[in-house]
Amino acid sequence: MSGVVDLEHWSHVRLAQVEQALERWVTAEAPQGLDHGAPAALVEAMRYAVLDGGKRLRPLLVLAAHEAVCDPQDAGAAQAALRAACAVELIHAYSLVHDDMPCMDNDVLRRGKPTVHVQFGQASALLAGDALQALAFELLTPLDGPVPPATQARLCGLLARAAGSAGMAGGQAIDLASVGQPLTERQLREMHELKTGALLQGSVLMGAHCGTPNATALAALECYGAAIGLAFQVVDDILDVTADSATLGKTAGKDADNNKPTYVSLMGLRASQAYAQQLLAQALAALDASALAHTLALRALADMVVNRAS
Amino acid sequence: MSGVVDLEHWSHVRLAQVEQALERWVTAEAPQGLDHGAPAALVEAMRYAVLDGGKRLRPLLVLAAHEAVCDPQDAGAAQAALRAACAVELIHAYSLVHDDMPCMDNDVLRRGKPTVHVQFGQASALLAGDALQALAFELLTPLDGPVPPATQARLCGLLARAAGSAGMAGGQAIDLASVGQPLTERQLREMHELKTGALLQGSVLMGAHCGTPNATALAALECYGAAIGLAFQVVDDILDVTADSATLGKTAGKDADNNKPTYVSLMGLRASQAYAQQLLAQALAALDASALAHTLALRALADMVVNRAS
Repeated sequence: MSGVVDLEHWSHVRLAQVEQALERWVTAEAPQGLDHGAPAALVEAMRYAVLDGGKRLRPLLVLAAHEAVCDPQDAGAAQAALRAACAVELIHAYSLVHDDMPCMDNDVLRRGKPTVHVQFGQASALLAGDALQALAFELLTPLDGPVPPATQARLCGLLARAAGSAGMAGGQAIDLASVGQPLTERQLREMHELKTGALLQGSVLMGAHCGTPNATALAALECYGAAIGLAFQVVDDILDVTADSATLGKTAGKDADNNKPTYVSLMGLRASQAYAQQLLAQALAALDASALAHTLALRALADMVVNRAS
Repeated sequence: MSGVVDLEHWSHVRLAQVEQALERWVTAEAPQGLDHGAPAALVEAMRYAVLDGGKRLRPLLVLAAHEAVCDPQDAGAAQAALRAACAVELIHAYSLVHDDMPCMDNDVLRRGKPTVHVQFGQASALLAGDALQALAFELLTPLDGPVPPATQARLCGLLARAAGSAGMAGGQAIDLASVGQPLTERQLREMHELKTGALLQGSVLMGAHCGTPNATALAALECYGAAIGLAFQVVDDILDVTADSATLGKTAGKDADNNKPTYVSLMGLRASQAYAQQLLAQALAALDASALAHTLALRALADMVVNRAS
C-alpha cells in the first residue's frame, strides 16, 4: 500500500467488517443463555448514536496496529482486534452523545443529523451513552470464542484507562473548566492528550495488544499514537476555522464562539498547520524506527488524520 | 455468625476494607508509569459521589459470596474480591449520580447531602458518572498483583453485562418509559430484574467468580442473587411509603408523587410485605440447597435487605 488510493481500498474492507460487527453487536436481542435482551427504545438510541456515521478512525487504528504487530493466522488476535475496534468506537460514540447534551456543549447537529438528545430526549441520551460504555467492555469479554482471557483483560484495562478520569473523561473535565481561560501551549497540549489523544493512542495500543508486541514495537507505537493523537486535535482546531458546517457535519466556528482555547487561537493558523505537519513527521519517524514490517496502513492513517478536509 | 450482631461485626471489618480501598483508588494521583493523573476537580466530584455514604450492600454481597465459595488462602481471589467489591460500588454510585440529574429523576438530596449535580453542576456530574464507570473496569484489571487475567476478564464481563443495556441501564430505560403507565406484575418484575436486580445478582456472581465455583454452587448463588435483587426493590417500594425522608436520606413518597408503578401501588402494602418475606425464604432455601459451607454472611445480608428500615 503506497498512497491514498490504497488506503481507500484497505479501509473499505475493514470498515465493512466494523460496520457489520457493530450492526450485529449493538442489538436488542438477548445473547443465548440470558433471560433479557435490552429494551428496544434504549437500543434504538444506541444504534442511532453508533451506526451509519463517523470516519471510524479509532477502529481503523486498532486494525492497522493489529496488522502491524500480529500474526495474520492468529484467529484469537483477529477476533480480539475486531472486538477492540468496535469497543473503542462505542466509547467514542458515547462521549459524543454526552458531550452534545445541553449541560455540556449543547450541540444540535452531529454528522449532519440531529444529536441523540434532540432526537430521543435528554434522559434517553444519558442512558444510551451509559449503556454504550458498558457495551464496549462487554464486547471485549466474550465467554466463548478464540480470544484468550489474558488478551481480554489487557484490552479492558487499556480501554478503561483511555476512557476514564486520567484519559478522555479527564480531558473533557479540563476542557469544561478552561472555557474563557487563557491556557499556555503546554496546558492546551495536556488537555488534548487526555481528551482526544488518550483514546486515539489507546486504539493503537489495543490493536498491538491483540497479539504480543515486543518492547521496541510497543514503544514506537506509543510514540506514533501520541503524535497522531495530538495532530488530530490540532487539525480539528484548524478545521473549526477553515471548514464550513456542511463539510464538517457539525457546527463550525463553535470553539471560537464559545471562547474555547484552541491551537489556532494560541499559535495562529499558519503555525498550527506547520505543527500538524511536524507531528505527522514524528509519527512516521516512530514507525521508521520500529522495525515493524507492515506499517503502511498506520502511515496512511497518520496522513489522513493530518491532511483530512473534515 | 448467627444473627444481627454477628453481621454487624462481619460487615464492620469488610466495610473498613472497602472504604479504605475506595479512598485509595478514587484518586487524582497518576499511577506509576503514567504521565497524567486525573484532573483534581473531576476527582473531587467522583469522591463526593462515592466516599462516606451508602450501605455498601453490593460490596458486602461480593465479599460474602467470595467467602462462601473461595479458598481463604487464595491471595489472588481475595484481591479480586476487594477490587470487585469496589467496582460494583462505583457502578452503583455512577448510576445514582446520573439518575439524580434534572433530565432523569431531578433529585436534590441523596444520603442526606446535596446530589452531585447540585454540588458541582450538571456537566461535572455527567462526567464524574462517566469516569466512575470507566474506573470500575480499571480497578478490575490491575497490571500487577495476584489477580489472574482470566479472573479479571470474567469479572469485567459480568460487570459490563450487569451494568449495560440488558442490565441496569436497560432497567432504567424501562423505568423512564413506564412513568404513568399501568404495568402488570410481570412487567414490573422484569423492569426491576434489570434496573436493580442485575447489579445485585451480578455482585453475588462476581464474588463467586473470584474463585472457581462449581456448577451447583453457581446455580444456587444465581437463585439467591435473583431473589434478593427483587426483594431489594420490593422493600424499596415499601419504604417509599412507610419511611420518612430523614430515615431514607432521600426524598420519600417520590415514586407515588411521580405516578411511578411500584409493588405497593400494584399489590398493596400488606401483600408487598408478604412478597418480600417470601423472596427472603427463597434466597435462604437456595443457600440450603447449595452444599456451600460458609453462607452465614450471605444469609445475614439477605435478612438485612428484607428487614432494613432505610
